[in-house]
Amino acid sequence: MSNSTTAAARTFSSDNAAGASPEIVDAVVRAAAGPASPYGSDDITAGVRGKLSEIFERDVDLLIVSTGSAANALSLAALTPPWGSVLCHRDSHINNDECGAPEFYTAGAKLVPLGGDDAKIDAGELRAAVRNKAGDVHSVEPSVVSVTQSTETGSVYSLDELRTLGSIVKEPGLRFHMDGARFAGAVAALGAHPADLTWRAGVDLLSFGATKNGTMTAEAIVVFDRSLTPELSFRAKRAGQLASKMRFHAAQLDAYLTDGLWLRNATHANAMAARLQDGVKAIPEVDLLGAAEANILFCRLPRQVTEGLLAEGYAFYHDRWEPGVVRFVTSFATTPQSVDDLLDTIRRYAV
Amino acid sequence: MSNSTTAAARTFSSDNAAGASPEIVDAVVRAAAGPASPYGSDDITAGVRGKLSEIFERDVDLLIVSTGSAANALSLAALTPPWGSVLCHRDSHINNDECGAPEFYTAGAKLVPLGGDDAKIDAGELRAAVRNKAGDVHSVEPSVVSVTQSTETGSVYSLDELRTLGSIVKEPGLRFHMDGARFAGAVAALGAHPADLTWRAGVDLLSFGATKNGTMTAEAIVVFDRSLTPELSFRAKRAGQLASKMRFHAAQLDAYLTDGLWLRNATHANAMAARLQDGVKAIPEVDLLGAAEANILFCRLPRQVTEGLLAEGYAFYHDRWEPGVVRFVTSFATTPQSVDDLLDTIRRYAV
Amino acid sequence: MSNSTTAAARTFSSDNAAGASPEIVDAVVRAAAGPASPYGSDDITAGVRGKLSEIFERDVDLLIVSTGSAANALSLAALTPPWGSVLCHRDSHINNDECGAPEFYTAGAKLVPLGGDDAKIDAGELRAAVRNKAGDVHSVEPSVVSVTQSTETGSVYSLDELRTLGSIVKEPGLRFHMDGARFAGAVAALGAHPADLTWRAGVDLLSFGATKNGTMTAEAIVVFDRSLTPELSFRAKRAGQLASKMRFHAAQLDAYLTDGLWLRNATHANAMAARLQDGVKAIPEVDLLGAAEANILFCRLPRQVTEGLLAEGYAFYHDRWEPGVVRFVTSFATTPQSVDDLLDTIRRYAV
Amino acid sequence: MSNSTTAAARTFSSDNAAGASPEIVDAVVRAAAGPASPYGSDDITAGVRGKLSEIFERDVDLLIVSTGSAANALSLAALTPPWGSVLCHRDSHINNDECGAPEFYTAGAKLVPLGGDDAKIDAGELRAAVRNKAGDVHSVEPSVVSVTQSTETGSVYSLDELRTLGSIVKEPGLRFHMDGARFAGAVAALGAHPADLTWRAGVDLLSFGATKNGTMTAEAIVVFDRSLTPELSFRAKRAGQLASKMRFHAAQLDAYLTDGLWLRNATHANAMAARLQDGVKAIPEVDLLGAAEANILFCRLPRQVTEGLLAEGYAFYHDRWEPGVVRFVTSFATTPQSVDDLLDTIRRYAV
Repeated sequence: MSNSTTAAARTFSSDNAAGASPEIVDAVVRAAAGPASPYGSDDITAGVRGKLSEIFERDVDLLIVSTGSAANALSLAALTPPWGSVLCHRDSHINNDECGAPEFYTAGAKLVPLGGDDAKIDAGELRAAVRNKAGDVHSVEPSVVSVTQSTETGSVYSLDELRTLGSIVKEPGLRFHMDGARFAGAVAALGAHPADLTWRAGVDLLSFGATKNGTMTAEAIVVFDRSLTPELSFRAKRAGQLASKMRFHAAQLDAYLTDGLWLRNATHANAMAARLQDGVKAIPEVDLLGAAEANILFCRLPRQVTEGLLAEGYAFYHDRWEPGVVRFVTSFATTPQSVDDLLDTIRRYAV
Repeated sequence: MSNSTTAAARTFSSDNAAGASPEIVDAVVRAAAGPASPYGSDDITAGVRGKLSEIFERDVDLLIVSTGSAANALSLAALTPPWGSVLCHRDSHINNDECGAPEFYTAGAKLVPLGGDDAKIDAGELRAAVRNKAGDVHSVEPSVVSVTQSTETGSVYSLDELRTLGSIVKEPGLRFHMDGARFAGAVAALGAHPADLTWRAGVDLLSFGATKNGTMTAEAIVVFDRSLTPELSFRAKRAGQLASKMRFHAAQLDAYLTDGLWLRNATHANAMAARLQDGVKAIPEVDLLGAAEANILFCRLPRQVTEGLLAEGYAFYHDRWEPGVVRFVTSFATTPQSVDDLLDTIRRYAV
Repeated sequence: MSNSTTAAARTFSSDNAAGASPEIVDAVVRAAAGPASPYGSDDITAGVRGKLSEIFERDVDLLIVSTGSAANALSLAALTPPWGSVLCHRDSHINNDECGAPEFYTAGAKLVPLGGDDAKIDAGELRAAVRNKAGDVHSVEPSVVSVTQSTETGSVYSLDELRTLGSIVKEPGLRFHMDGARFAGAVAALGAHPADLTWRAGVDLLSFGATKNGTMTAEAIVVFDRSLTPELSFRAKRAGQLASKMRFHAAQLDAYLTDGLWLRNATHANAMAARLQDGVKAIPEVDLLGAAEANILFCRLPRQVTEGLLAEGYAFYHDRWEPGVVRFVTSFATTPQSVDDLLDTIRRYAV
Repeated sequence: MSNSTTAAARTFSSDNAAGASPEIVDAVVRAAAGPASPYGSDDITAGVRGKLSEIFERDVDLLIVSTGSAANALSLAALTPPWGSVLCHRDSHINNDECGAPEFYTAGAKLVPLGGDDAKIDAGELRAAVRNKAGDVHSVEPSVVSVTQSTETGSVYSLDELRTLGSIVKEPGLRFHMDGARFAGAVAALGAHPADLTWRAGVDLLSFGATKNGTMTAEAIVVFDRSLTPELSFRAKRAGQLASKMRFHAAQLDAYLTDGLWLRNATHANAMAARLQDGVKAIPEVDLLGAAEANILFCRLPRQVTEGLLAEGYAFYHDRWEPGVVRFVTSFATTPQSVDDLLDTIRRYAV
């Protein structure tokens, strides 16, 4: 194996370390020929909107942006006033890993962290929070709820869980955002209709992630409440998120949505995580932490295993949450062989 | 000619309508294979920084962002406090065409428009403005000067002009930003050292444009005052401008800077504008407006010429500035034949 | 005369240099006794709202704030999105003298300065501006028009002028704000109904100035479009403008509105400016600049006159606009004797 | 007793329900006569700065603002960048009761709530938090620590506790803010030097509360790190917190600081809370919650006592924290008789 191939096979740090799907690379190459209307008025962008409308069984609008942070922060800015609060899980990406992007885009709204097992918002906590001090000018106003699907720990909200949360959100009139950085993984895991997982459960805006699952630089906001589109468009421009040569982002998404590539990639990534989970279960020295329903697996490794893996060039996050806890992330590019090799290596150091 | 080829040949609307240079497409294809460190910690990004340091004859830092609006707004945010003012030309892109992106990123700084011929800031006006109400809490504080090089009308600041402005900016301690969305065109037009055109004239931060000159989705901030890098890095993340798969932007810039592609592309675009200008000069019914020093040409066309061009599928901006005034923009992708065809068509309708 | 009395008699710098009306002082003293509900839920605040509703012949809402800058900036924030523009006169206070407070409160909206004689917005310029690039995401969106009544130069919009502007504002759906830092002076000058000068001409929010006309620390926003009240309330709290012991501001306004004190004070201030104007007209060495319709007078003085006045302890702004130009401002506290003394002194140095 | 006197005697809801000290009323009356320089350039404001410099044994700068929310938010904005975090107690006023004013003024910094008994920040938690993800662009940067003295529950940080926190704050280079809405109460309770409680423990900026302890509308920021003064001045103007007739706020503070009024008022308020605490201790049906070190007392009352007090016109917060928990706040205006009457009434209903 070449060094590069070895590196690929031993990278379990994040799905954002993977390259891009060949179909997506081809689409970008094709898009490079000839002129096109700028700023998203091109044909490829229009085609993406059409494909998303089919997938979500409804006319949707679309904003293509360059990062997931932008997709999330822009969505939240359209759903809360500056004096509002964003109710989210305390372990959510928007709360911990975006350097206050939501606070910046919203002009200073407040993220209110809630608890819940497996990085999923607890319905009871949410029920109390949506009405907390509502209408009291001394406090921020509960305005929007954001859930991550699939979550930061690899868990997945079931359809029932989403419907329950959606009704809690909507009853007092709040807005509902879904951080779908790994949305494909959830659809693949549940085998559910994308529409059921989103707008039919009350979701107003979806950050539709693609970069972690095969594209290069393209993320989208799927707009179910289309009255928000003008505001989102102004905000996107103002945030430096309206690309002049938008077709190059759009081409990635177009290929991603063609012939089910997005679901194939996600199904594969999930299967690789499941394969890893199955293997790990059989190693008594390793404790599984939560269930890998999508493409992320948390477990607790003996110290010498972590050190052994690192010594052999494995890349993964460890000791970030608590001592001994590690995270493995699989992707569309993970091979069964690389999973099996990882398992062998764990076993080797575990004994 | 196919429809697409025809469209390409008749597109003079903007350099952002062009596709991408083949070398850049190839670089992106190569970058797609295998894993890479995310968020700009990859090797390709490091290489771009090295190349820019060579070009600018100095260790520079680098932020890669997805749009020129982001490059400008982010730069300005690092150079002015919220209560500061940004002195710029009244016809500048930051003042007119970014939907208030600078105001958003700076948390409400004020753009103060100045006059000057050919979209270049008048030194006398600037001299008065840099001290206007300085230190007076009732007024915004003059904090940063932004020039566009080459300008929005296709003119170019000479080295002497830049040095003069630079000394006016620096004497009272203001900061100096250059919007280089078309920086390559200025370097090509002047045959000057990039270092002389920037930090040696006092420039602190340069928005180093690439998308209009051959890349797809990549722009850079070249950081001459490296004390600004930490702040810029936090601001970029927070603005959703820190791409996870940064290598895909970086690969574009790497190819752009390799073997002088950036200057070859710009030299070609400039030559095409000059060819158009030369041709137009010989058509008595057409008035040239200013000199096309880079790749933009403004002129006044008789009504029937404008209408004739539009009828034949030519794409260009017209009647936006004043009635009869049109703008032609050439790019790295413009062919001599397409310029000659445009001239023929103008002549045909002019008589 | 004591030093203090002399100083009072020779102060023509601004109406904010005056003390407070005795009736207002008494009201504050009375308000200090005993407990009261905080944050504006007290009886005095309720009374002020009632009095304003009578004066404006309509149920209005009320926000009491501590400065005119806050009244203006808060109002504008409720009337424009961050990506909107505020159309105002280039000589307006919000554009020049508030250090970007509107930009801060609005999260980065853009002030677009318009021209017009006597610091009044030209209707023709406004007509073009309200539709300028509307709906174009590359540009800020025309959202609100702000007029100052009476203006920064002492002129007054007539009822007809206001109605014309109001219809230009409202036809394309923009919002209308009035900076009434010296509103009482305009009402006194025109002898018009406050309702006609405001909501009947389309005004949505009025910054109802009081401090320059007799109160100490109290300004109000009169809310004609009461759907804006909740948003204004949250914004006010968040801006640190919701006073806990609100009654102390409210008591000032209550006395100000009782028995017509506000109009008596303004009528007096206007009369003092008119007296000064009449006297100055008869001095051939002095050029009047514009007409003093309210309580501000601009004129051009020979150098030795300006120097003489300063030498004798007169306080006024000079040489701020152009060399030789001075501004005299009268107030409720200006005495006829002090005006006559000023005129005598001018005459003495003029010869 | 008149109704008003009864109401005064039965108001234990908050110290912001009290009126104003007679000395302060007198000072405002005196300030109303004659002209004065605006915007804080008057003599009274200068005098306040002098008095504060004496009290704090050091040349300090001063910003006078109209609310405690403004004092806090303005201070924090000068101490953290927008991408910074403000470490504070989870029960702090800035975190819960200011509708996101800190987020607004700071352009979107993040408040990170910490735990600790008696509303005081736990030193161990703080030690971990000041270095949490420092320098990591994916996370907000720990920038400033804010403590409340005396706290929201009536407890007081000892000198040792403050010094410990101060050294934790300063060691890694963070800034230190003190919310002193009830600072006088802490000084009175501890009998300590104001300097020891603030800058000698590392405090950079102090929100020096006055309104709750006898003034009407005046709060101050005491600036120990005077390099912050220019920034604070621009921010204050921009926030609508630079009053034109500043002398009317300054006069209140001047009287407040004259002849120890501020400490006399606080000592009295504390004594009234202690008297109440002593009385309550002897009532077996009532549970004291924490110790009233300053002027706030929390306890748990039997339901019929709470209802009885309300029926008799007593004003106080109840059932806001948890069922049965009530808060009594005393002030400079609370009389011993009113405390004794309250105790009698509690006893009457308790049996």
